[in-house]
Amino acid sequence: MSNLKSKDVVWHQGVVTKDEREKLMGHRSCTLWMTGLPASGKSTLAVALEKVLWERGLHAYVLDGDNIRHGLNRDLGFSPDDRVENIRRIGEVAKLFTDAGVLNVTAFISPYRADRDRVRELMKEGDFIEVYVSCSVEECEKRDPKGHYKKARAGEIKEFTGISAPYEPPTKPELTVATDRHSQEECLEQILAYLESKGYIPAE
Amino acid sequence: MSNLKSKDVVWHQGVVTKDEREKLMGHRSCTLWMTGLPASGKSTLAVALEKVLWERGLHAYVLDGDNIRHGLNRDLGFSPDDRVENIRRIGEVAKLFTDAGVLNVTAFISPYRADRDRVRELMKEGDFIEVYVSCSVEECEKRDPKGHYKKARAGEIKEFTGISAPYEPPTKPELTVATDRHSQEECLEQILAYLESKGYIPAE
Repeated sequence: MSNLKSKDVVWHQGVVTKDEREKLMGHRSCTLWMTGLPASGKSTLAVALEKVLWERGLHAYVLDGDNIRHGLNRDLGFSPDDRVENIRRIGEVAKLFTDAGVLNVTAFISPYRADRDRVRELMKEGDFIEVYVSCSVEECEKRDPKGHYKKARAGEIKEFTGISAPYEPPTKPELTVATDRHSQEECLEQILAYLESKGYIPAE
Repeated sequence: MSNLKSKDVVWHQGVVTKDEREKLMGHRSCTLWMTGLPASGKSTLAVALEKVLWERGLHAYVLDGDNIRHGLNRDLGFSPDDRVENIRRIGEVAKLFTDAGVLNVTAFISPYRADRDRVRELMKEGDFIEVYVSCSVEECEKRDPKGHYKKARAGEIKEFTGISAPYEPPTKPELTVATDRHSQEECLEQILAYLESKGYIPAE
């Protein structure tokens, strides 16, 4: 009898879709993929963006070196193969967060066009927003908050992007923010304006 | 002048914390780690739970074979090393989702105690809820929705959990649901009651 009763309960079949999650969250979900030289300002911008979006009641989440390199990708080094695998895994996790209804922001150098394009191909049209965080090597080297450029110049860090390893700028990024020409606040406003104009987030 | 003005903007420093995200979402975040034999009902329960939580306006997301094995872990096979790495990566991603403020539900056989305990150790106290989806091998084999048990008996699938490879039941799971003794609805109600009583989600 108890079983019979349970079977009478209306059962809501089917999985929750991305559309339904977006409706619940009150915004569209996507991955804002920030790419740029070391010290170009990716992480700072990503964290600031997360904060602003959160203050608007929107669900954002940052993936960066802090929560990836010491966790999911702790088994990876900096060999060419490991760099490819690093970006591949981050792309797959970004896809999951996007599917989950989150405004996902990633902040990784991701120097190779092919690696970034593979992530783009993983996602649906409109789900991947490539943000080129543009800054001259000279300016990045002047900032050098972690002293990495100095070590790279001294040969203490091998294959350092921008000094002894290539950085391939995006050819068709959805958005470019130039942190050597605009303040952090201005760059942030450009990203928010993009998200609003394309309907990812409600206009303020 | 424009720069000066930008600098005058009150800048909200600091990262968004898990606590702040939970406040925004209106529920605590955690990982409900479902473990059990093949065909014990993990995935069905996980998807149904996600649906029910979503209907309550809560942000849940399922990680299962469908979105992990063909994505993040597509490079992994079923060797002992690969099985360990499979669960390790899922644990790290579950940790990210939990940190992001999501009610994360994972549905993987995860047959080894040591692997599950490693995931538990990754997380903060209370963030990891081990849910043992208990069901006799006989009942699982009777269900066998994908015909895997049949193939395992015929020797076509090697090292199949429950038949030719061990399953180590949790010794101290936070919750056990017995799908061979209770209906899906009843198991679901047990999980919801647990989440409500522990304050993870608001009581209905």
